[in-house]
Amino acid sequence: MAFRLTPHERGFYPLFTRAAENIVVAADQLAAMVEAVPADRPAIAKRVKEAENAGDELTHEIMVKLNSVFVTPFDREDIYRLASSLDDCVDHIEEAADRIVLYRLERLPAGITMQVDVLRRAAAATAEAMPRLERMAALQDYWIHVNSLEDEADEAYHAVLAGLLSPAETPTDPAAVLEIIKLKEVVDTLEEAADAFETVANTVESIAVKEA
Amino acid sequence: MAFRLTPHERGFYPLFTRAAENIVVAADQLAAMVEAVPADRPAIAKRVKEAENAGDELTHEIMVKLNSVFVTPFDREDIYRLASSLDDCVDHIEEAADRIVLYRLERLPAGITMQVDVLRRAAAATAEAMPRLERMAALQDYWIHVNSLEDEADEAYHAVLAGLLSPAETPTDPAAVLEIIKLKEVVDTLEEAADAFETVANTVESIAVKEA
Amino acid sequence: MAFRLTPHERGFYPLFTRAAENIVVAADQLAAMVEAVPADRPAIAKRVKEAENAGDELTHEIMVKLNSVFVTPFDREDIYRLASSLDDCVDHIEEAADRIVLYRLERLPAGITMQVDVLRRAAAATAEAMPRLERMAALQDYWIHVNSLEDEADEAYHAVLAGLLSPAETPTDPAAVLEIIKLKEVVDTLEEAADAFETVANTVESIAVKEA
Repeated sequence: MAFRLTPHERGFYPLFTRAAENIVVAADQLAAMVEAVPADRPAIAKRVKEAENAGDELTHEIMVKLNSVFVTPFDREDIYRLASSLDDCVDHIEEAADRIVLYRLERLPAGITMQVDVLRRAAAATAEAMPRLERMAALQDYWIHVNSLEDEADEAYHAVLAGLLSPAETPTDPAAVLEIIKLKEVVDTLEEAADAFETVANTVESIAVKEA
Repeated sequence: MAFRLTPHERGFYPLFTRAAENIVVAADQLAAMVEAVPADRPAIAKRVKEAENAGDELTHEIMVKLNSVFVTPFDREDIYRLASSLDDCVDHIEEAADRIVLYRLERLPAGITMQVDVLRRAAAATAEAMPRLERMAALQDYWIHVNSLEDEADEAYHAVLAGLLSPAETPTDPAAVLEIIKLKEVVDTLEEAADAFETVANTVESIAVKEA
Repeated sequence: MAFRLTPHERGFYPLFTRAAENIVVAADQLAAMVEAVPADRPAIAKRVKEAENAGDELTHEIMVKLNSVFVTPFDREDIYRLASSLDDCVDHIEEAADRIVLYRLERLPAGITMQVDVLRRAAAATAEAMPRLERMAALQDYWIHVNSLEDEADEAYHAVLAGLLSPAETPTDPAAVLEIIKLKEVVDTLEEAADAFETVANTVESIAVKEA
């Protein structure tokens, strides 16, 4: 139904694409951060924070447009949900990056690298799919792909949780338990980011099915 | 207004009933699990996981139907909320079962058994109410009942939290604190399940009031 | 469009105002509680709980009205979101107050006082804005103010998290780590309350932009 839309209403599509490309920036920086030596992390965290701020502005722009235009390219609730879940992706990525620096975490479990790698791939898939939203083209491949990435994320999350909370050697030092609490918060937040990508994909599926 | 619905649109009702019956399966298995010896728990957790997968498929079926039919028996947002909150019930139950096995928790506090018992009763009440959704019959009893069960769940949750985090004997072993972290995650997740049942009940109330 | 509304439909406005004023009561009591000596806290927590119950009743009244009236002063989804997020504010405040008493927390970090102070100001700003919802007057100042309060809340939260989880002296006592777990739950809950105030403000902005 795109041909019935005025340029103003079509303005949603580039905003969704920019929001998704912004998540790619955040996810790539997070990946660089977990690979970096601890001394380099605060500078990288700052760039993730910048991406989060950029995401907030894009979300706000979408919401203002949503509330001020009369005709929308698809259901208002779907636009609301899509914008909110894209925002959640970058928020959780930023929160994880922030905690790594705030808690001065030095050694990160290998599982975290796997979780971040899945997020990076989910972000890339999302950014690649958003420009196809207008023509509703080849979106099924995208949401199936993201759903399978979420399964991968779950597995990585489970492995790291088990290793962290039921370690081979029972901790005998209170400081080690405190370290586990901090790492668990990062790990949980990365899982929330993976869930947010799935919510984006489910919303896109919902939009596509209605338009079909 | 059911008489105006085609068979296709009426198809929502059996799906809600099946989703609720599926939660009963999950809750009953969870109850069996907390009673079982640790060695038997992984096999039971597998059955809870199967219920979660079945729930995902039912939710997906409801969402696809919601997006493809023109007329719905009640507000689209209410159908969306009802399906989502039913899905949340089984998700949280599965998450609790999963953590008990993943963290190899051996001794579960008595309070957990009480929490699970309330969930089982909330699941039964929900499954019993869903078939009455079509005729909008005797639903008030159901939502009042679930709201009082949620009060019971809160009390059980409070008691177990206090016992777990402010134990009579202050822990002197770091491993004991790690155990508390793991048990707290299970306890919190069970409380989230209780909240999800209340959200289902509130959504049903919302639907019933509109139709009255 | 207020002049087109019957008295019944206009009834939403006083309910929103009362819900916001009720949050002020809860936030003020919470502030009194963190200043009080531990022995006085249970009595204050009881008053916070009473405010939470009053909030539940107001939310329920709004939802029943929402489902039973034909014409609403603004979008149903916005009324639903506004009522839910006002309810979330008082729920999180009550949860924080409850945990302080339940866990018999004696010494609260200074950061918590700062978090509570921001909540108190956010509650006051919200209660002051609600009566202007009907005339849609001077609401922009309000949501800009609450958004800047949320930035302040974030800073207070960060400072207290860092001090709590990365303390100058590494804990050598398991009981100290357990204390950190309990305090972190309170601190996280206060941050959720601050987020809920921001959601209220964002919803008001969304309503105002549509009506403009």
